Amino acid sequence: MQLPEFSPTCILPPGFRAAGVHAGIKTDPQCFDMTLLVSDVPETVAAGMFTTNRIQAAPVKMDIAKLKSGKARAILINSGNANACTGPQGVRDAEEMAQRTAEALGLHVDEVLVSSTGGIGKPMRMDPIRKGIELLVPRLSAGGAEDAAQGILTTDTRPKMCTTTFDIEGHSARISGFCKGAGMIEPNMATMLSYIFTDAVVEAPALRAALKTAVDNSFNKISIDGDTSTNDSVICLANGQAGHSPLQPGHPDWDTFQTALNGVLFDLAMKIVWDGEGMTKFIELRAEGAASNAEADKALRSVANSFLVKTGLAGTYPAWSRMLDVLGYCGVEIDPDRISIYYDDLPMLVESVPGQADAEKVKALLHSNRYTVTLNLGTGGPGKAVLYTCDCTEEYVRINMF
Amino acid sequence: MQLPEFSPTCILPPGFRAAGVHAGIKTDPQCFDMTLLVSDVPETVAAGMFTTNRIQAAPVKMDIAKLKSGKARAILINSGNANACTGPQGVRDAEEMAQRTAEALGLHVDEVLVSSTGGIGKPMRMDPIRKGIELLVPRLSAGGAEDAAQGILTTDTRPKMCTTTFDIEGHSARISGFCKGAGMIEPNMATMLSYIFTDAVVEAPALRAALKTAVDNSFNKISIDGDTSTNDSVICLANGQAGHSPLQPGHPDWDTFQTALNGVLFDLAMKIVWDGEGMTKFIELRAEGAASNAEADKALRSVANSFLVKTGLAGTYPAWSRMLDVLGYCGVEIDPDRISIYYDDLPMLVESVPGQADAEKVKALLHSNRYTVTLNLGTGGPGKAVLYTCDCTEEYVRINMF
Repeated sequence: MQLPEFSPTCILPPGFRAAGVHAGIKTDPQCFDMTLLVSDVPETVAAGMFTTNRIQAAPVKMDIAKLKSGKARAILINSGNANACTGPQGVRDAEEMAQRTAEALGLHVDEVLVSSTGGIGKPMRMDPIRKGIELLVPRLSAGGAEDAAQGILTTDTRPKMCTTTFDIEGHSARISGFCKGAGMIEPNMATMLSYIFTDAVVEAPALRAALKTAVDNSFNKISIDGDTSTNDSVICLANGQAGHSPLQPGHPDWDTFQTALNGVLFDLAMKIVWDGEGMTKFIELRAEGAASNAEADKALRSVANSFLVKTGLAGTYPAWSRMLDVLGYCGVEIDPDRISIYYDDLPMLVESVPGQADAEKVKALLHSNRYTVTLNLGTGGPGKAVLYTCDCTEEYVRINMF
Repeated sequence: MQLPEFSPTCILPPGFRAAGVHAGIKTDPQCFDMTLLVSDVPETVAAGMFTTNRIQAAPVKMDIAKLKSGKARAILINSGNANACTGPQGVRDAEEMAQRTAEALGLHVDEVLVSSTGGIGKPMRMDPIRKGIELLVPRLSAGGAEDAAQGILTTDTRPKMCTTTFDIEGHSARISGFCKGAGMIEPNMATMLSYIFTDAVVEAPALRAALKTAVDNSFNKISIDGDTSTNDSVICLANGQAGHSPLQPGHPDWDTFQTALNGVLFDLAMKIVWDGEGMTKFIELRAEGAASNAEADKALRSVANSFLVKTGLAGTYPAWSRMLDVLGYCGVEIDPDRISIYYDDLPMLVESVPGQADAEKVKALLHSNRYTVTLNLGTGGPGKAVLYTCDCTEEYVRINMF
C-alpha cells in the first residue's frame, strides 16, 4: 500500500467549521485561548480516548459520559486553565460551558463536548469563558482550523497540525487534525488534547477501534516528562460526507483508512515531542532482546523518565551509562553481562563492555539534534519496543516553576 | 529512653585512623579525591549494605564478596570516577586498588574494601590512584576523619558527618560516620557512600541486623531524583574496643546501641537531602489513609520523583495539584473523591475540594525552605509512610548535563 502524504496544516473536511479567539483567560491579548469546533452534519459520529489517570478533570468526565452515544456535534475548548482538581464547582463550570455553547449553536447539550487545558488546581474564571463563546460562534468558518489550533495551546511554542487525503471506493476522503501538548506528557493512553476530523463514512464502533489502534501507535509512544495528565483527550469526529459505503474491519479499504488515521496521529505525536518543554534533542529509544514486548516498553519508559538520563542527553554526559544504571533498577529482566547500547550505529557498549565507538563520531552525534538509541537487554528474548522522547534542559525547569 | 545527642563532626572511636588527600583524579588541586580508612584492631567486625541495582559497580561486587566473612580492616575510596559500567577492566582496577592498599598496610587483600564514586561509564585512570595510596598511608591519623569525609565528595557542597556517644554497661561507646551523596539518589536500600565506625562490641550477624534496621529508617527514606545508583554502599566497622559484653538482640543495652546507630544514619541521610543537587527546599512527605504501608510508600516515591511536582516545589506553582495528578496515575488505591492534602497544617485540599487554606499563610509557607506535605489517600486504610525529598531547580539540570 502506498503511504499517504501528510501536510503540516489542518484543512477541515467539508461540513466542519472552526474558530479560535482571545477571550481573556490568558493575559496576553495576542494569545488565543478559546476554540470552537462544529460539525454541520446532524448525524456526526464521534469517538474519544481519554487519560488513564484516576484523577480526571471535570470536562473529561463529562465527555466520557456523552461519548457513550457515539455522537457529538461540537467541542468547546479553553486553554489557560485545565479545570482539574477543582471540586464540585469545576463540574458545574464544565456543564455551563456545554450548555451555553449548545444554546448558541442550537444544539442539544448532549451533543457538545468540552476540553480544558492549562494550570491545574485553580478555579475557572467564567466571565472570559462566557464572553469567548459569544465571540467564537460568529467566527466559525471552514477555514478556521489554524485559529482553532492556536486557541488550545499552553506552553507549546507553535500549533501542531496535519492533513492527509486518500481514496475510498473512488471517493476522495480526508483526515485532518491538530493537537497541543508540551509538558505533563506521558501517554498511557491518549495524551494532551487532539482533535481529528474526517469526512469518511464510519460507524462509531469501527471509529473507536481505529482510533485506539492509531493512539496506541502514536500518542502512547511518546514521553516528555513521565507525568500522565488529568486532561488528556483525543476526540475524532466523522461526518460521513465522503459518500462511500461505511468503513469497518473487513471493508476492502479499511486498511487505507487505518493507515491514514495512524499517519495523522503519528505525525501529530512527533510534533509534540519536537515541541517538548525546553527540549533541544529528539531521541528515538528502541529496546530489543527483552523477555517480552511489555518488558521492553517498561524499560524504555524507565529510561525516558530518568532525570539523569534526560539531563545527560541535553549535554554531553555519557547518558548511555545512566541508561545502563536505569536498566539495573527498573525491574525488568536483563543480563547484566550482555547488555549492548548503540547511538545510531555507534557501539557505546557491546555485551557490557564500553568504549568501542569512535570518539570523534560520538562527539559529532552528541551535537546533533536527533538520534536513535538502541538498548539490547541481553536476555535473548524476542521483546522489543519503541518510544519517542526528548532531553530535559534548564528551560524545562523554568517553565514549570510558576 | 533518653535520645542521644549528635554532633555534626566525625570523631573516630579509639583504634580507627583515617586520611584524605588530593591524588589528581579531579583537576582542582584543592579538591581531595581519595580517602583511606583503617582499623588497627585485627578482629574488626564489618557489615555492609549495597545498591539493589542489578548493574553494580566493580568495587561493589568485590566488597559484597569480601564482607561475607563479617570482617574488614581497611577501606580505600576514590571520588571522581565511579568505576561503574567499565567492564572487565573495571574489575581488574578495583582488585589492583585493594591489592596495593593491602601491601602498603601489611594486610591481607581480603581485609581491604574499595569504594568508588563519580561519573559512570568512564575508564579509571590508575596513575593518580596509585599515587594516592602512597600519599594516604603516611597521613593516616586518629584525627583524620574530616579530611577523609572531604575525599569522598563529588557534587556535594560540604562534608556530612555525625558522632554520638552512649553507655553500655557503664562503658562509654561511640558511633561516628560520614557520607556523601547529592544526586542519583533514590534509596532502595542504601544510597550513596556512607562509612560508620564504632568501638562497640558486636558480632557480625548482630551488626548486620542493626545496620539494616538503621538503613531502612534513614537512607531508604530519602529521594533526590529517583535514580538508584550503581555504587550505593553503607559500610560499618566495629572494632570492639569499648570493653563491654557483646551486643545482640536481647542484650539489655541493645536498644541503646540500635537507637544511637539509627540516629547517626538518620542524621547523615537528612544531610544528604539538605545537600541535594541544586535543592532550595527540604520537603517531608507523609502519606496516610492508604490501603497498606507499601502502597503509602509507593505513592510517596511516585510523588517525590515527578519532574512536575519537584519543579513546582522549587517555585510557587500549586504543586499539591500535581501531587494529586500523580496519585491518580501511580497505581495505588485511592478514593478520587476523598483525597486531602495539607502543607504543614494548611488545608490545600480537603476530601478533594480545594481552596480552603488562607492564601497569605500559603504564600508565606511557599517561601520557606522546609515544610511537611501530608497526603491522605482517602481509602480509610491504615497504611502510612514518610519520605524526605527536595525540590528540583535549574541548577540540578546544569550539574548533570556534562
